Amino acid sequence: MSPEELVLAHADLRDRLFAAKLLVPCGVDGLYGRSATFEKVLNGVDAAAYALGIVDDPITISFPPMIPRSTFEAVDYLRNFPQLCGPVFTFTGDNKDHSELVHRLDEHEDYSDCLSLSEVALTPACCYPLYPSLVGQLGDGDGWYSTMGYCFRHEPSVDPMRLQAFQQREHIRVGTPDDVLSWRETWVDRIPKLLESIGLEFRTEFANDPFFGRAGRLMSRSQIEQELKIEWLVPVFGEDHPTACVSANYHQNHFGELFGISTADGAEAHSGCVGFGLERCTVALFAAHGTDVSMWPDSVTSVLWP
Amino acid sequence: MSPEELVLAHADLRDRLFAAKLLVPCGVDGLYGRSATFEKVLNGVDAAAYALGIVDDPITISFPPMIPRSTFEAVDYLRNFPQLCGPVFTFTGDNKDHSELVHRLDEHEDYSDCLSLSEVALTPACCYPLYPSLVGQLGDGDGWYSTMGYCFRHEPSVDPMRLQAFQQREHIRVGTPDDVLSWRETWVDRIPKLLESIGLEFRTEFANDPFFGRAGRLMSRSQIEQELKIEWLVPVFGEDHPTACVSANYHQNHFGELFGISTADGAEAHSGCVGFGLERCTVALFAAHGTDVSMWPDSVTSVLWP
Repeated sequence: MSPEELVLAHADLRDRLFAAKLLVPCGVDGLYGRSATFEKVLNGVDAAAYALGIVDDPITISFPPMIPRSTFEAVDYLRNFPQLCGPVFTFTGDNKDHSELVHRLDEHEDYSDCLSLSEVALTPACCYPLYPSLVGQLGDGDGWYSTMGYCFRHEPSVDPMRLQAFQQREHIRVGTPDDVLSWRETWVDRIPKLLESIGLEFRTEFANDPFFGRAGRLMSRSQIEQELKIEWLVPVFGEDHPTACVSANYHQNHFGELFGISTADGAEAHSGCVGFGLERCTVALFAAHGTDVSMWPDSVTSVLWP
Repeated sequence: MSPEELVLAHADLRDRLFAAKLLVPCGVDGLYGRSATFEKVLNGVDAAAYALGIVDDPITISFPPMIPRSTFEAVDYLRNFPQLCGPVFTFTGDNKDHSELVHRLDEHEDYSDCLSLSEVALTPACCYPLYPSLVGQLGDGDGWYSTMGYCFRHEPSVDPMRLQAFQQREHIRVGTPDDVLSWRETWVDRIPKLLESIGLEFRTEFANDPFFGRAGRLMSRSQIEQELKIEWLVPVFGEDHPTACVSANYHQNHFGELFGISTADGAEAHSGCVGFGLERCTVALFAAHGTDVSMWPDSVTSVLWP
């Protein structure tokens, strides 16, 4: 498929989702309203992804779609992925500053410099706010967590698999390197079973995050060589252009060091996470089984709504 | 209660919610993680608030916590409530710009001007993205909607009833002025019954939104005089300092005109919405019945988890 054909395939699937009123256009690529049916499927995927981890008895915790800017800066998101970032600005001026802002709005002029950085930024991955909350020593038997929430990445695209605003289910393990790597292996077993049960084809790859620029290329190569990120890719637009729908990541001691987390016996904590891209799985299901959920195979719906 | 005593009362309730691990501090006032129990109560309030409107058979639609900047500007949010706003910035530069950004980060210097306005802003009220999606003429029998989602308002506070990131359930009616006002009357009946059933005291008031500055005072006065906004206030911190937990609003033709919405018989649409502050109701429940949900009266839990 040529790049031009791929864009047409993206637009075609998006338009089918619009026509079926599963997604609602808002005027910005990758920012869509969702019908009750779309959310029902998405919540079914989420429930199945959550249920897969119940055996670990995780602590369930939810965070808003924004994180403190201090966390955002601490994890080096601006340095590594500036092109995807979403820091939130606000207005802290007085009446005079407000008059200037209103003047700019009236004249349709850029008003960026009437605003200033707030203390919050949009969450790029829903596990980020967890790590700073774990500062200190984990209790005995602690170290399994599960969370779900909205994330933002600035990557406008006509591809309905690549949204700017999307939801993730993340399972997180914090512990010794062995704890984390053996836990990740359990997910390497579990994830294919889930994808097969809902009728999605996939392949598995060692992958990298989209680090920015020249220095980023080195970090990407190192991430792949160290096998830190495993992705399950679903070929919605053909075998040559599959989309990562689930990933399992080993962070080594990155967050443990950054946020001062230690294991129950006092060692610096390592961590890993498994993330399900809920809209990606949901859109893949509509692509695989059609936009009319009433026609989906019982084998699939019985997994989503057991 | 003096202003100083009020702040202490706010901090005391917040700290009790932290101590019970219902809310998790993140380092920014008004931005908290939530335990499974907190979310269970919140979802119970939401389900009860949703159920109250089922008789209207609304179309249920969900939106991400971000809206297009075009919508944000069209509704005049920056003009009217700049102090609460959350436009999202991002980085669109090249390698050279990135080097400058990294330099600023290394030197702990302000990097605001390395970023630029993105096409999205945080949603201040979860009904905003609905109106532009209704452009054109409503179908016969259309005009009832329900939505739920995360909102952002930049008002850092130690008061756990006043969050920066919070969830709303909103019911929306679009139609003729009579349609909207008579629908709002049904909610004026329904809302007290719900609040009473979950054991929350309240009083009702005509109210105003927090319009900014000198010009804003006129708009606030006019809003009250025209009885456009009714609030149900819960006195968590005493009768003199109640907090609005639910509101019922009449927008007149504001959104109909702005987004070109007409009724099924071609008239310019009027609209109204009823909004439940889900964290406010949830925190009020913990304040009223204690932080141990297992001790709550059956009469309350049977409404939340029927």
